[in-house]
Amino acid sequence: MDDLLPAAKQVLQTQPFSVLVGADLTAFAPGQAELTISITPQLRQQHGFVHGGVISYAADNALTFAGGSVLGPAILTSEYKINYLRPAMGSVLIARATVTYAGRTQAVCRCDVFSVDDGKENLCAVAQGTIVRTGRSSDDQD
Amino acid sequence: MDDLLPAAKQVLQTQPFSVLVGADLTAFAPGQAELTISITPQLRQQHGFVHGGVISYAADNALTFAGGSVLGPAILTSEYKINYLRPAMGSVLIARATVTYAGRTQAVCRCDVFSVDDGKENLCAVAQGTIVRTGRSSDDQD
Amino acid sequence: MDDLLPAAKQVLQTQPFSVLVGADLTAFAPGQAELTISITPQLRQQHGFVHGGVISYAADNALTFAGGSVLGPAILTSEYKINYLRPAMGSVLIARATVTYAGRTQAVCRCDVFSVDDGKENLCAVAQGTIVRTGRSSDDQD
Amino acid sequence: MDDLLPAAKQVLQTQPFSVLVGADLTAFAPGQAELTISITPQLRQQHGFVHGGVISYAADNALTFAGGSVLGPAILTSEYKINYLRPAMGSVLIARATVTYAGRTQAVCRCDVFSVDDGKENLCAVAQGTIVRTGRSSDDQD
Repeated sequence: MDDLLPAAKQVLQTQPFSVLVGADLTAFAPGQAELTISITPQLRQQHGFVHGGVISYAADNALTFAGGSVLGPAILTSEYKINYLRPAMGSVLIARATVTYAGRTQAVCRCDVFSVDDGKENLCAVAQGTIVRTGRSSDDQD
Repeated sequence: MDDLLPAAKQVLQTQPFSVLVGADLTAFAPGQAELTISITPQLRQQHGFVHGGVISYAADNALTFAGGSVLGPAILTSEYKINYLRPAMGSVLIARATVTYAGRTQAVCRCDVFSVDDGKENLCAVAQGTIVRTGRSSDDQD
Repeated sequence: MDDLLPAAKQVLQTQPFSVLVGADLTAFAPGQAELTISITPQLRQQHGFVHGGVISYAADNALTFAGGSVLGPAILTSEYKINYLRPAMGSVLIARATVTYAGRTQAVCRCDVFSVDDGKENLCAVAQGTIVRTGRSSDDQD
Repeated sequence: MDDLLPAAKQVLQTQPFSVLVGADLTAFAPGQAELTISITPQLRQQHGFVHGGVISYAADNALTFAGGSVLGPAILTSEYKINYLRPAMGSVLIARATVTYAGRTQAVCRCDVFSVDDGKENLCAVAQGTIVRTGRSSDDQD
């Protein structure tokens, strides 16, 4: 099963914005996905913490890959909700998403985002969202 | 009142991630904020559309600035929810946020995100979230 | 167009829980729906305010009817998010929902919930959610 | 610790709407709460399933009690988001909420709602929300 990871890693690398952020897919299996980002200075906000937009990006994309692990590659994130819990500091950001429910055309997933500081993981955000299968015209998202 | 915009623009420019994304604050007044992003190739996903993470960043940050317009500068986004409506194409992304409710310590805001293609604005995402005033220790976000 | 309202009112009356709560559909037209509830003592929580569950019910159902006004009757609410803004007091609760985006199989709607006290409307909650068209087996909601 | 349950049960019984719905608190301990509802005909919608408003009520209230288990009794639900997964059938509805993060003034909680049919639990909805401590004037919710 583990050989799903290399192909999924490559999909991530075809996203220019994921390359810009420096994201890597570090786990991918049916029902779960993990995205890891090295926290570089350019990912910060004015107080030195990781920018919320980076945390959102990580949650959004981890949710999408988790959904894709059960729905296949033709998918998109329909919606999600995120709660920020603590400022994210440290060297690495990890977003772990799991599939809570999978139907034929959509999956509902949850994601926990951790910042890693001195080897310790701190939960800094939690998200929940819907991934839908597409097979439709490109100008209509539903 | 309009002279709030230059100061708010400068705050945005102190966020390294906002500089990386290329965001600009194009309107800021009590109860509203508008964020504008030129859509460069590096902000795209694998199909050429604007990456959802960029749209989320724009919504999140516009919500925060809208909240800040009534709560002051010591604020953070506590949570938000976003629905993606259409793929975002074109040259410019605009996120417009307004304050729906403002109390002493929090504001609830809504945001509409548009992509501009050939001068035409297309609604591509809608968001709703909570901005809270901080005046607390930096290791506890609530 | 106004003659859509009587039929929609009847749909609401076939929902035993809506009858229990005492809800009435007071407006229904393409793109919008309004639900009105008389605030009786049994709809309250322990401090005398309208129970959050009643406000959620009103938002949820108004969102569903708004979605149904553009998608037709075979629909269900897929998900929504609600922010409570103020305690709801007074004699009447009104939930007004509008369609923000409508595609072929789903609609994204927003809802404002007001409590009416001495003839004055107070915004007490705002919601945003997704209504999807069904045409599927009854044991799979997506 | 288990003696927290009787007092929490009594709080629920002081909510007229919870009595109307027929809800019971069946577990309550630091960090978690479980709400159980017998599915009577009046809790249904037009197709015989449990009305979404009942599921929302259960999620909302379970989230609130979970938050209260760590924040104390002076609390309210600030916001939450719910995804409906499957139609809820059967004899009993159970909402189980846990605290994901607790700070001094707010808690972020998650909730799973199950319907029980022939002794089998089916996950029918998942929710995530924010509970805040109040210690403020009753006419301002933030």
